[in-house]
Amino acid sequence: MDNFLVISADGHAGLPPEQYRNYLESRYHEQFDSSLAAQMAAAAKAEENFLIKDFNEEWRGNIANGLSGAWDSQVRLDVINADGIAAEVLFPDGITEQNAPPFDAGLGLRPWGVDPELQWAGARAHNRWLAEFCAEAPLRRIGIAVIPLLWDVDLALQEIRWAHKAGLKGLLIPPLMGDKDPYNHPNYYPVWELCQDLGMVIHTHSGPSPAYDFSLPGAMGVYLSEFAWWASRPLWFMIFGGVFEKFPKLKFVIAEVTEFWVPSMLEMMDVRASVKHTSGKLGDFRSNLSMKPSEYFARNCWISASAHFDEGSTAVRHDIGIDRIMWGSDYPHPEGSWPKTAEKMGKYLTGIPESELDLMLSDNAIECYELDREALQQLAKEIGPSRESFREPPSFEGEQKGHSA
Amino acid sequence: MDNFLVISADGHAGLPPEQYRNYLESRYHEQFDSSLAAQMAAAAKAEENFLIKDFNEEWRGNIANGLSGAWDSQVRLDVINADGIAAEVLFPDGITEQNAPPFDAGLGLRPWGVDPELQWAGARAHNRWLAEFCAEAPLRRIGIAVIPLLWDVDLALQEIRWAHKAGLKGLLIPPLMGDKDPYNHPNYYPVWELCQDLGMVIHTHSGPSPAYDFSLPGAMGVYLSEFAWWASRPLWFMIFGGVFEKFPKLKFVIAEVTEFWVPSMLEMMDVRASVKHTSGKLGDFRSNLSMKPSEYFARNCWISASAHFDEGSTAVRHDIGIDRIMWGSDYPHPEGSWPKTAEKMGKYLTGIPESELDLMLSDNAIECYELDREALQQLAKEIGPSRESFREPPSFEGEQKGHSA
Repeated sequence: MDNFLVISADGHAGLPPEQYRNYLESRYHEQFDSSLAAQMAAAAKAEENFLIKDFNEEWRGNIANGLSGAWDSQVRLDVINADGIAAEVLFPDGITEQNAPPFDAGLGLRPWGVDPELQWAGARAHNRWLAEFCAEAPLRRIGIAVIPLLWDVDLALQEIRWAHKAGLKGLLIPPLMGDKDPYNHPNYYPVWELCQDLGMVIHTHSGPSPAYDFSLPGAMGVYLSEFAWWASRPLWFMIFGGVFEKFPKLKFVIAEVTEFWVPSMLEMMDVRASVKHTSGKLGDFRSNLSMKPSEYFARNCWISASAHFDEGSTAVRHDIGIDRIMWGSDYPHPEGSWPKTAEKMGKYLTGIPESELDLMLSDNAIECYELDREALQQLAKEIGPSRESFREPPSFEGEQKGHSA
Repeated sequence: MDNFLVISADGHAGLPPEQYRNYLESRYHEQFDSSLAAQMAAAAKAEENFLIKDFNEEWRGNIANGLSGAWDSQVRLDVINADGIAAEVLFPDGITEQNAPPFDAGLGLRPWGVDPELQWAGARAHNRWLAEFCAEAPLRRIGIAVIPLLWDVDLALQEIRWAHKAGLKGLLIPPLMGDKDPYNHPNYYPVWELCQDLGMVIHTHSGPSPAYDFSLPGAMGVYLSEFAWWASRPLWFMIFGGVFEKFPKLKFVIAEVTEFWVPSMLEMMDVRASVKHTSGKLGDFRSNLSMKPSEYFARNCWISASAHFDEGSTAVRHDIGIDRIMWGSDYPHPEGSWPKTAEKMGKYLTGIPESELDLMLSDNAIECYELDREALQQLAKEIGPSRESFREPPSFEGEQKGHSA
């Protein structure tokens, strides 16, 4: 094939908030109606903390026409066609936090300060809309159901079964904050087992954090120093908890946590798991593991590498495992590659061997989500970036450097 | 000098629990008496989680004679003389958690589930005993006051002033868990300012963690995966909060967090602080910083490298900064080097250039704690390990490898 097949392992889709009403069970309409204004105000305020106004307005102004792809099927297809992307994994929170599902059922999924019943209702509303949205282009949309797992395992099992039937391919679970049962708790075994059986891929996604006080100096620096840790935290609960030992085909993806630090996370777990004088006093916590932590990662886990996929990411691709990294565009989030996807891909992917690009751009995602390679390749023939796109420009013997500028 | 001057930047001292009564203000005696049995039972239970019984009993059985150095001045001097250690930094929790100050005023210093007034009382009791203990050998004991800072800044200011007058050299503060004001809060400015003015060194120490459920599979692996993060967490609150910018002579030490991962922590902060597309949307959180995060670390911070100071630590010593690392023995904790200090030093320090050993074994600690170099060097002449101890054995030309075994 002359073109690359490109799958974005990180995209976002969501309705304008008021439209979620149509997908919400009617018994929650009253609460929805009475809380919508407050929710939108809170989202606007959150966005004030997270998105400086000037940056946001300039960004939105330049690309207004493409942003409605967060919920408009045809606009989205036009955008990803132009970006050369054949298929996308779809998380919630469309354009930004302002397109989140109702009742705090978006990326944050915080397990405190919310009504669990309402958060579940919001999650179901999003999942029902998302299933319809994916059904409009099933080859190209890999929908991820929102599952507020910490509240209720039985509801989770029910919703995961529904989501699988409805064509969704995985679930987003909250990271671990607060006082709910952590993911090394046997209570969750039925969830992991069901996901393994159905091939539903489990995800965490960057964004959630404790409730920092953003009026304090440097609070954003603190958030940036920690967001990847919070999103990744379930990994060592699951690995040391023996979850991947017990459910060896379970699939777990960590999305948008940046890549440069992932090797140090893997090293950390391996060092901690190794038998040393210093942990000898701590008793047995390894007999439920037959492999090193990094070996479970290499078998069961992937990194959705989006937004920050740059020279820091490509430098460590072999330390993470070239078969563990799935490139993503993060469309339509402002920190993503769109609307400069071609330019950014060119900048950071040029010079990487094509066999490695094939893995990161599509093969790994095809394996993880069990996608229809043949149909996607047909599509890529039309829209995918040419294989020459990321080749080093030829250098000519005798050419003098520094003259062409 | 023919011997190394060795200062241990991590040691532990504390009374048998019942003896703290003598140092506790009398108005707390009733509560002390009624809670002592429960405290000792809780400590024993905590130790069951953290120290497997067999390991602990064997360890204690072998070295029973030296353990009382946790509180016995002469025993302690005998032990560190034999270890070649001229002076020690003294944190709480003598032998193990069983020698912690009353009312949860030990290393954990948790800011939840305790009575703040009692925790403060326990801290003061420990600090008063520690000041006496240090006064028995002032050249050789660098006492660290326990300061439950999260509860009350005014009490903290008062106790830091007292501790300084009483000859203590620094303070131990709790890491950040729970819902108290974090260390980027301006409320703490008076504390940082006072510490800067008095030259009191601020410390966090590994140990504290959220309340994991240790009955769950792999919980100890989770603890091991996170303890260093929790102990180090105040660092990025203080750096991004501009604390070291505002108080450029403030000194901060992170103790016993293992070293192999410190470079990745520094890289993480620097990457997060760098201007990138991906953080552009997040507004200004750098204008209160004139340097990179790692540059504040290089100027204001040290790592007390104990217990786990091994090949993983020496490999990264230049990435951390050879002037930032202070070796420690962790006596009398079971994960420390004692009673095999000479053997462990030989194993991990041999082959390192002497100028670097001088820094890590004493010069850095002398600078950090403003110690009396001359008097310590006199002492080291008597007890310090010889400079030949850590030289590579000479190799002879023509010698055939593999035959001497």
